[in-house]
Amino acid sequence: MAKPKKILVLNGPNLNLLGKRQPEIYGKATLAEIEQKVRALAQELKVEVDFRQSNSEGELVTWIQQAVGKFGAILINPAAYTHTSLAMRDAISAVGIPVIEIHLSNIHKREPFRHHSFIAEVAVGQIVGFGLQSYLLGLKAAVEYL
Amino acid sequence: MAKPKKILVLNGPNLNLLGKRQPEIYGKATLAEIEQKVRALAQELKVEVDFRQSNSEGELVTWIQQAVGKFGAILINPAAYTHTSLAMRDAISAVGIPVIEIHLSNIHKREPFRHHSFIAEVAVGQIVGFGLQSYLLGLKAAVEYL
Amino acid sequence: MAKPKKILVLNGPNLNLLGKRQPEIYGKATLAEIEQKVRALAQELKVEVDFRQSNSEGELVTWIQQAVGKFGAILINPAAYTHTSLAMRDAISAVGIPVIEIHLSNIHKREPFRHHSFIAEVAVGQIVGFGLQSYLLGLKAAVEYL
Amino acid sequence: MAKPKKILVLNGPNLNLLGKRQPEIYGKATLAEIEQKVRALAQELKVEVDFRQSNSEGELVTWIQQAVGKFGAILINPAAYTHTSLAMRDAISAVGIPVIEIHLSNIHKREPFRHHSFIAEVAVGQIVGFGLQSYLLGLKAAVEYL
Amino acid sequence: MAKPKKILVLNGPNLNLLGKRQPEIYGKATLAEIEQKVRALAQELKVEVDFRQSNSEGELVTWIQQAVGKFGAILINPAAYTHTSLAMRDAISAVGIPVIEIHLSNIHKREPFRHHSFIAEVAVGQIVGFGLQSYLLGLKAAVEYL
Amino acid sequence: MAKPKKILVLNGPNLNLLGKRQPEIYGKATLAEIEQKVRALAQELKVEVDFRQSNSEGELVTWIQQAVGKFGAILINPAAYTHTSLAMRDAISAVGIPVIEIHLSNIHKREPFRHHSFIAEVAVGQIVGFGLQSYLLGLKAAVEYL
Amino acid sequence: MAKPKKILVLNGPNLNLLGKRQPEIYGKATLAEIEQKVRALAQELKVEVDFRQSNSEGELVTWIQQAVGKFGAILINPAAYTHTSLAMRDAISAVGIPVIEIHLSNIHKREPFRHHSFIAEVAVGQIVGFGLQSYLLGLKAAVEYL
Amino acid sequence: MAKPKKILVLNGPNLNLLGKRQPEIYGKATLAEIEQKVRALAQELKVEVDFRQSNSEGELVTWIQQAVGKFGAILINPAAYTHTSLAMRDAISAVGIPVIEIHLSNIHKREPFRHHSFIAEVAVGQIVGFGLQSYLLGLKAAVEYL
Amino acid sequence: MAKPKKILVLNGPNLNLLGKRQPEIYGKATLAEIEQKVRALAQELKVEVDFRQSNSEGELVTWIQQAVGKFGAILINPAAYTHTSLAMRDAISAVGIPVIEIHLSNIHKREPFRHHSFIAEVAVGQIVGFGLQSYLLGLKAAVEYL
Amino acid sequence: MAKPKKILVLNGPNLNLLGKRQPEIYGKATLAEIEQKVRALAQELKVEVDFRQSNSEGELVTWIQQAVGKFGAILINPAAYTHTSLAMRDAISAVGIPVIEIHLSNIHKREPFRHHSFIAEVAVGQIVGFGLQSYLLGLKAAVEYL
Amino acid sequence: MAKPKKILVLNGPNLNLLGKRQPEIYGKATLAEIEQKVRALAQELKVEVDFRQSNSEGELVTWIQQAVGKFGAILINPAAYTHTSLAMRDAISAVGIPVIEIHLSNIHKREPFRHHSFIAEVAVGQIVGFGLQSYLLGLKAAVEYL
Amino acid sequence: MAKPKKILVLNGPNLNLLGKRQPEIYGKATLAEIEQKVRALAQELKVEVDFRQSNSEGELVTWIQQAVGKFGAILINPAAYTHTSLAMRDAISAVGIPVIEIHLSNIHKREPFRHHSFIAEVAVGQIVGFGLQSYLLGLKAAVEYL
Repeated sequence: MAKPKKILVLNGPNLNLLGKRQPEIYGKATLAEIEQKVRALAQELKVEVDFRQSNSEGELVTWIQQAVGKFGAILINPAAYTHTSLAMRDAISAVGIPVIEIHLSNIHKREPFRHHSFIAEVAVGQIVGFGLQSYLLGLKAAVEYL
Repeated sequence: MAKPKKILVLNGPNLNLLGKRQPEIYGKATLAEIEQKVRALAQELKVEVDFRQSNSEGELVTWIQQAVGKFGAILINPAAYTHTSLAMRDAISAVGIPVIEIHLSNIHKREPFRHHSFIAEVAVGQIVGFGLQSYLLGLKAAVEYL
Repeated sequence: MAKPKKILVLNGPNLNLLGKRQPEIYGKATLAEIEQKVRALAQELKVEVDFRQSNSEGELVTWIQQAVGKFGAILINPAAYTHTSLAMRDAISAVGIPVIEIHLSNIHKREPFRHHSFIAEVAVGQIVGFGLQSYLLGLKAAVEYL
Repeated sequence: MAKPKKILVLNGPNLNLLGKRQPEIYGKATLAEIEQKVRALAQELKVEVDFRQSNSEGELVTWIQQAVGKFGAILINPAAYTHTSLAMRDAISAVGIPVIEIHLSNIHKREPFRHHSFIAEVAVGQIVGFGLQSYLLGLKAAVEYL
Repeated sequence: MAKPKKILVLNGPNLNLLGKRQPEIYGKATLAEIEQKVRALAQELKVEVDFRQSNSEGELVTWIQQAVGKFGAILINPAAYTHTSLAMRDAISAVGIPVIEIHLSNIHKREPFRHHSFIAEVAVGQIVGFGLQSYLLGLKAAVEYL
Repeated sequence: MAKPKKILVLNGPNLNLLGKRQPEIYGKATLAEIEQKVRALAQELKVEVDFRQSNSEGELVTWIQQAVGKFGAILINPAAYTHTSLAMRDAISAVGIPVIEIHLSNIHKREPFRHHSFIAEVAVGQIVGFGLQSYLLGLKAAVEYL
Repeated sequence: MAKPKKILVLNGPNLNLLGKRQPEIYGKATLAEIEQKVRALAQELKVEVDFRQSNSEGELVTWIQQAVGKFGAILINPAAYTHTSLAMRDAISAVGIPVIEIHLSNIHKREPFRHHSFIAEVAVGQIVGFGLQSYLLGLKAAVEYL
Repeated sequence: MAKPKKILVLNGPNLNLLGKRQPEIYGKATLAEIEQKVRALAQELKVEVDFRQSNSEGELVTWIQQAVGKFGAILINPAAYTHTSLAMRDAISAVGIPVIEIHLSNIHKREPFRHHSFIAEVAVGQIVGFGLQSYLLGLKAAVEYL
Repeated sequence: MAKPKKILVLNGPNLNLLGKRQPEIYGKATLAEIEQKVRALAQELKVEVDFRQSNSEGELVTWIQQAVGKFGAILINPAAYTHTSLAMRDAISAVGIPVIEIHLSNIHKREPFRHHSFIAEVAVGQIVGFGLQSYLLGLKAAVEYL
Repeated sequence: MAKPKKILVLNGPNLNLLGKRQPEIYGKATLAEIEQKVRALAQELKVEVDFRQSNSEGELVTWIQQAVGKFGAILINPAAYTHTSLAMRDAISAVGIPVIEIHLSNIHKREPFRHHSFIAEVAVGQIVGFGLQSYLLGLKAAVEYL
Repeated sequence: MAKPKKILVLNGPNLNLLGKRQPEIYGKATLAEIEQKVRALAQELKVEVDFRQSNSEGELVTWIQQAVGKFGAILINPAAYTHTSLAMRDAISAVGIPVIEIHLSNIHKREPFRHHSFIAEVAVGQIVGFGLQSYLLGLKAAVEYL
Repeated sequence: MAKPKKILVLNGPNLNLLGKRQPEIYGKATLAEIEQKVRALAQELKVEVDFRQSNSEGELVTWIQQAVGKFGAILINPAAYTHTSLAMRDAISAVGIPVIEIHLSNIHKREPFRHHSFIAEVAVGQIVGFGLQSYLLGLKAAVEYL
């Protein structure tokens, strides 16, 4: 059976502030603008996307769980939970859906506690540092992977 | 005053997926089946149980707080929050209800970040590695302790 | 434009239990009594306060985000999340509102994992160990800072 | 071929002093009383037990080796050797008999050097902190496992 | 017997340079100006203060020792000795006078070796990051504590 | 002056063995096949590429140095030198040409000594784990960046 | 009841080789000569001594256990077991007899793994580096302590 | 005086199980078969060998001590005691007989706690990973060394 | 030339408070009483002693330097400077006078930062944990050493 | 197909200086003399050897790569690159030819940074400390392994 | 305004013993002889020098503070305070006078605790290991820097 | 025999870019200009110099080896290899020619991985942080040393 050609795009805590705050780190695009660009590319690549953001670790865990059978891949920018959430990591391991981890900024140039990702160890791959492009490259990688 | 003969059984994040995912680690029993076995044993041991699961750290903290005066003991499988949640640990310290920590898998055979438990340091005791039996042994330990 | 003379007072997990549990560590005052003293002092200092508590990391993150444009400063007792929440830290960095971190107990006299604060590194300052007075000193510091 | 329904109960160094010394840590029961309770439960569960204690690491290693073909499971309280004996660990790995590790006290509440167990990593599971009950729960776990 | 209403204010090494050097870290107030503000507030709070500075660890130790029976509390900005002086820590433990530790800058935003305080572990509490206000808040905390 | 639309693709030690050895880690494509795909995409994206491989750290350093004024970006798979070469890192810092680091395998799933990259800290961004696609995504990222 | 005026002198592994091997570290006196000097001083101080050596950790544990009720103090040179034997440490904690730890050589001048003593943490005190005199000073300390 | 042409071959804990257990790690040869091959080679090389095994650290220490004047070299497979026995290390240092350390498996491919050897630091040399051949190569090395 | 039969007894910071403060750690004897006992024993052992205390690291360094040619040995209780003073260590190394380090309390039972002594590594030996007796045993050791 | 009976002997940086420099560490034999002995033994064992030395990490990597299909085993003394070269390690993993690692000196007796070998983890086995004999024992091991 | 052509030469603890003690580490020149050579060179370079030594950290701090406006550069051999004195470091940061750090011996060849310098991080540069020449090279560097 | 009055000046990787890149770290002088100044000073000091640069670790090792008998001292700026090259360190140890290590920038003010030098531990001394002057001071030190 072919995997569903639908991709869940998850955004972790504080990403709803994008474009309004700290543009020197995260760029000037708002989350709405990112969503728009992601949707445009998805259309071009002929895949559906579901685009969500939450500040709650528990809600993100639940969304990952509910993706089973509905989404062929998950594109995730886990933001601060990248470095602390074993619960999200376990959810990813459990559902078995391929996950692609993205970051707007280059986490390796920032504070040491941002260098380690609990998610990367259970993801297919990781794309970091290309700003808005990280989302678009990640979407391409996801479509290619399916 | 005798402590209430009622036991709260708490299940942490992703345990709602039990039996459906990664049976090689967590076994084939679903959480519903575990609940059924726990209820059967509780009946036999003449205690009441309240059986819950949540993916949200905050909700688990609140449930622990609300147990005061209602439950004589808490049986908890904190799953991923075992290793990261100081908030749950503080809730347990605060309520003063005896807590028994259980794990389905032998956490000491898994990744290093799963070896340390913030909960064990404030629990009565810990039972790890016996699959579904961990719950039943934990319930017996709780009843014996009361 | 003058910053708003309104201060958000945030209380992290388990602080709703204050006064009822572990008074040898946290003192005998309940959170309601602390709120009352904080409100009395605020009136005297001619500032408004909004006083809240949550066990949920995600809710605290959202409250910090929503403070933009409404509050001139945040007085926060992050409790257990002090030591684990990068999401709250990132929210504070993002909103750019001055934050004053307070603790009832002297965290440096307690377990080693309570010595490090992710919040202090993005706060204006930190006040620890004066019990209920930590709130009042923090409020004065906030008003002085504005 | 069915595994033999006989269980070897091993007790490590200083456990012969139980009940006579440091009851605030290890409880009031003597090793003889524990043996009696274990034997009573074994009879009830219809298994044979062989109950031994030694202060010598080498003797414990030899007993583990000699269990092959005679015992279906080993219940072990390795006491101080929990944290230092690679020789006992290797013996357990070599004989391939399921081992259940038990501790009277909650080792996670004690000195840091007691938190790590070389045995747990090669055992089926671990039960810590329930005093005399740790033995009885361990025996049940062993019988259930067989 | 009532504790004496007299407070010793101690200033560690290099604080005599305040206001003249590195104002971006320590602010523009000189130590004399700080003393003046502290004295004004003390008068208002109806306590006496004795205000001193030394570059010598041994002299600071001796001053702490001599405070016994003369001062009800010590307000101390230990500066560089915060992180290295066990001798000052031992003096504080020995004299048993309540000590309040203050810092002008937020030490948690500076080099890692400034994050740990040997003094905080034996102080009542710690106030960091409010510049000149740290002294005034500390004085209030001391008076409240007496 | 517009930056040159020419991209240098550098391959570190042992990548000349690709496709012939350890396909379970690095995939089945040979370096020649990767070069072909990279060239095809480059043509499509209307950029020139220069594609090289070396086992010598010194030669790679020299190639990076010589890229100044000739290439607008460097796409690099540093292989084993990712984790050990400060000389390559210094060369990248010195030339100031934007560098995109790629890896075929997900280095975060491999041995701990492969988790840290000296190159990532001076690169624009990093793409890991997508096999042959890592090169193509990296080329797109480079072109987008120019 | 007065404590018995009898002192057990225990010597750990390899001390039977004293005087014959590595005199540059351990001195020229044989264990027999040390015993003789210890006995002479004991006579002078009017206490009885029992002087033993073993290479076996288990035997040393057993000797410590058997000292209960027979000896008022234990003088121990644990040699190599100083740094590795939790079993001896636990025996000392259990029996509650005051223990004085001695070493011929200055362990702080030797390899780092000889700097830490598991025994010192449960002993009354420790005397290191005085050669044969360590035994005599230790005996005096023991007699004084009784 | 010529050193005696007699070699002591010592085998540490659990090596008596060789060939019967975990052949994927330790190979299929039993200890008896290894002894036979060692004796055959010894005859060929015209040296005598004394071949022993013990699970007891103390006994191994004593055997090393007793080798003085009787054996020209010791060939030792310390097994688990490699990583924990300072007592054996001290015995080797004390007797001054050249020691050659051997291991059947490649300890550097196994768990991190098996990578460090307390014995290697006082041995002439070390041979690891060649299975049964490790003994024969070790014997040749010993004979060559004498 | 015979070494001078004169012994310098140095006491580090806060020891002037002995007997008045924290007797549960340091005992009830004042420094004057200790001096008296030391002098009495010195007379008995027919040596002269010079007994001093300072809170200043620099002064202690200078006293050690000035001991050259005047004292045959130094008995030192470096108190808090034990763990932090490289300057005192260097002075001891430089003067070449035998130094005996003593502590009233058992530093190995206290905070981890008190376990390491910079002085012990350049002293003849160390005596810890015997209260006032530490001084008397130390004096005997010094006299014996001369 | 039988593996080729040809063995590549590789020598890392500075081994061309053997015999001329630091004979107290590396022995008096020159590399030419070692080669001669290795060739003599090879002839005796009826295998061909190719004997090379390089100071260049890249050249050693290339030689390992080129060994595929030509050599049945590699005998390597990686010298300083033992501890730093992931590139050589990766080459060995990639080519899949059995590698035997040898060292003239006992690296475990030297500086801590020489204790870890990146090569040992991918080699068949390791022989250290027997001087020139390390080569001969290694050659025998290689021939035996083929 | 031109910086004053006057250089302060500071010498830390124990340097007053130079030439008399441990010449194998520090050389045979006394501090007076070093001063003489420094003065001779200063005359040649046409700068004034003020040459001082102290064993007291506080005095050195004060001298650094008082250098403001009087000296154009400080040449400092901080001796033991190199590794422990944050107070001296803070003084150097505060005064903003260029500081050149020198050491007689090569501190990188000595004990690990001598490898780190708190001073180097705030100095212009560091010269180590050239004995008396370190002073002369440092003076030249200072003059060149002005 | 007098040592040859010829000095080899070695420059490590990326130093050929000096003056063209990152002048804020390394200064504005090109390597050619540095060579010119070094040659001018050499002439003045009546020594010959041979001035070279390489990006290849192997080549630098070879140059160090070939210096035997031709050069009386080596002045080396190992650049990035300072922190990673054991091969260069071993070459220096082997040839026994006095080596003086220099750095343009103050490595102690830069990233932590630049604080440690493998070369310093085998060099005569080290000069860091004086820009172009580091070469000239190093040359003077070398000539003085000869």
